[in-house]
This record gives sequence, C-alpha cells and structure tokens, in this order.
Amino acid sequence: MAEIITSLHGIEETLLDPPEGAELLLSKKNARIDALVALAQRAKVSVRDVSEAELTKKTEGREHRGVVLTLPGGRKTRETTLEEFLATFDAERGLVVLLDGVTDPQNYGAILRSADQFAADLVLIPARRSASDTPAVFAASAGAAAWVAHAVVTNLTRALGQLKEKGFWIYGADMNGTPAAQAKLSGRVALVLGSEGKGLSRLVRETCDIVVSIPTRGRLDSLNVSVSAGILMYETRRQQQG
Amino acid sequence: MAEIITSLHGIEETLLDPPEGAELLLSKKNARIDALVALAQRAKVSVRDVSEAELTKKTEGREHRGVVLTLPGGRKTRETTLEEFLATFDAERGLVVLLDGVTDPQNYGAILRSADQFAADLVLIPARRSASDTPAVFAASAGAAAWVAHAVVTNLTRALGQLKEKGFWIYGADMNGTPAAQAKLSGRVALVLGSEGKGLSRLVRETCDIVVSIPTRGRLDSLNVSVSAGILMYETRRQQQG
Repeated sequence: MAEIITSLHGIEETLLDPPEGAELLLSKKNARIDALVALAQRAKVSVRDVSEAELTKKTEGREHRGVVLTLPGGRKTRETTLEEFLATFDAERGLVVLLDGVTDPQNYGAILRSADQFAADLVLIPARRSASDTPAVFAASAGAAAWVAHAVVTNLTRALGQLKEKGFWIYGADMNGTPAAQAKLSGRVALVLGSEGKGLSRLVRETCDIVVSIPTRGRLDSLNVSVSAGILMYETRRQQQG
Repeated sequence: MAEIITSLHGIEETLLDPPEGAELLLSKKNARIDALVALAQRAKVSVRDVSEAELTKKTEGREHRGVVLTLPGGRKTRETTLEEFLATFDAERGLVVLLDGVTDPQNYGAILRSADQFAADLVLIPARRSASDTPAVFAASAGAAAWVAHAVVTNLTRALGQLKEKGFWIYGADMNGTPAAQAKLSGRVALVLGSEGKGLSRLVRETCDIVVSIPTRGRLDSLNVSVSAGILMYETRRQQQG
C-alpha cells in the first residue's frame, strides 16, 4: 500500500535501497535536506520542489520537516510464498521460522530483525491470528522486513508437511521439550514458536518431529517470544556451524 | 512511590504477593471482584467497601471497574544495592548483568524478564542515561522487577572493579568479540551490554576481561539489545551447567 515517510531518519534509511516509484518532495532547503537530495540522486530517486501547502496536503496534516518521501507501491519488502521458497531452496543447511499465533507487531518485528541477523531463510506466519506486514512491524523490525524473506500461509500444519517433504525437521518450542542444546539442530531446521499465552496449538504440536525447550528456572511463566525465537535461532546456527 | 492499580489482571497478579500496606477498595460486587476479594483475604490484604465517587476520586479520573488496589509504598520490587549483593553472594557460579546505557524501558523490562528466567543473581544499571524502575519497566518485565534483584550504581566502571574483586570475570558484549560459544563462560560471570546505537562506552570496554560476540551475518547492524542479553544469558547458563 502507498506510504509517505516523513521522518528524516526514515527517509534516509529508505533511500539507501528505495522501492520503485519513490519520489522525494521538498518545500525548503537546509543542510539535512541537501544530504537527503544527494542520497536520492545517487539512488536515482526523482526529486521535486513543491509548495509548503502541497506538502502538508500530501501528508494529510501529519507533521513534516519540509521533506517527505512518497512510496506509491509502499515499502520494499521481501514478502514471498512458501511455494516459491520450496521451489528454489537447495542448501544443505536451512533455517525456517514459523510463528503460530504471534499477534503482537512488536514481537513479530523483533523476530524479523533476529531472523535477519541469523540469516534465516524464511519466516512463515499463518494468515489468521497473526501480526501482518504493517508499518508498525516494519519499524519494530528496524527495517528487516525489507531483507528477510517472509510469507503468509493459510494453513500452518499443511506448511509444516510441505517443509517435511523438503527435508526439514520440525522443532516445536515448548517449555516441556528436550533442552535445545541436547536436540540435534542440524541440516534443515524449521523452528515453530507459539503465542506467549497459549504456546503451540495442539495440531501444530502433533505435527512437530521433536519438541525443544530453553531451560529456565524463573518465577514467571516464560521468556518473551521474541527472545525465545532469538535464542533458538542462535542455538540452531551454533549447532549447524559447530 | 504510591501507586493505584486499576486493571483487574494487574490487581490479581499483585495480590499473589502484595507489598506491605496494600488495600483493596471496591464500589460494587460481581463474580470477578469476589474472586479478587478472596485473593486479598488469603494474602491478608485489607478490603474496604467505598462509594463509586470515592473510588473515582482515588483514581483521579482514571478508568476503573469498581475495584482498585492501592499501594501506599508502591509495588514490591527487588531493588537492592551492589554492596549488599557483594556482602552476601557466595555461590560458585554467578550471573550478573550490567546495562551500559540501555535507555528504553521496553528493553530494560524485557531484560529483567529474561534475567528472571535465567535466574540472574543481579542486574545493574548506571544512575545516568538509563531506564529506571518505572511502571512502564514493570509492565514490560511482566512483573519480573518484583523478583529479580536489581540495583542502580553511580559508576559502572567502579562497579565492574568491585565485581572483579569478588571473583567475577567481566564479559563485554560487542560484535567484534570472541564468539560467546568459544569464550569460557563459567564460574562467576558478569555480562556487560551497551546501548543499541553506541555499544559499550570506551572506559567500560577497557575494563572488561574479554569481549564476546554473538556471531551473526545479517544486513542490519545488530540484534535488539534485549534479544542479545537473552542469548548471552542463555549461553552462560548453558556453559555453566555443562
């Protein structure tokens, strides 16, 4: 969906790798805006002088600082499909992360950010009961949504079956599982994380090859799901490389 | 500082282990409120019927649902001092987490929550440039601020010196360090995490015995600091437990 970026920092970041059709509109000049114009020119993004009134109209009253970046097709995102992934993936080691009912955009964004850091091959979320690719997720991901391949699936259990056929082992995260360091997280690994309150749904849990846990001994129920996801991605990469 | 809890969930959680002087005030009765009254009685918290008007006055206009919990001394918190910790700590293995410039309450709260899960012995934050023990931190910690010993220090470098004297090895987290899995994270471990933007300050960095990293290969700069903290606590406990 079309988007207009008004924060100077957001404009700067997006200009490093802008989507098709981006345009920089400015109603004044200063050193900071000059730097953005230079960035835009380097990225071959068109730059246009407009009146203050036109800029305010464009942003529909949102605050701006004399410059905005318009993205008619929205931000660049690495949204893909499971089918495309399955058709092209051929590495010996793999890391796919599936989120079963993670609804909080903050958590979803943070997981995408970790997925970037641990070079996950794909992040999958079910179409229902999930956070989707919104500006809030984008912000929480610190921009990772533009780099990390992610896809929406209508049926998570079916997706797990397709991944199994592709040689992935399915590891469900649950506090009652085998400690992750003792599970064999090698080859093609698919990690499934449930919602914080409810954990994995029964059907998804039964589809997992093995249930793994992060050994903890706190007073509270659990880790934050984005921290759990980060730890399991870390542990997977540690074992795969080790 | 005095606090008034208005959310039913917050009241319920706090009544499981209420601070001194807590009082439950109610202006109506229903099944949910009856359950809270029962909880209060079990915890020996005094219960008082008040008028709707009095309750609204108490909450200074904040929304309530006919029941509030007043905490004249504020929430229970495990705030302590470094000196008290040093005087009493005598375990062979230890885990202390120091935050050098983590200012976001969300991140600080999430780190406290992970510290609970990994049974960290102490979390230290410098008095300046840090998130402090606010309701926002409390909420983000999912209540862990009540369980995890944490202290404010005026001089982080000095605190590191005191921990060294107590037999702690100081591990600074930085992307250019030794991979954490290859560092010897055993015995008494103090982990130092910097702010997301700037990393460790120079002086703190020089005081560390060793700099450790989480091996990543993403497009972005770094992991979220609360995810990094969770991973390093996990890795420390994994190695300490053998």
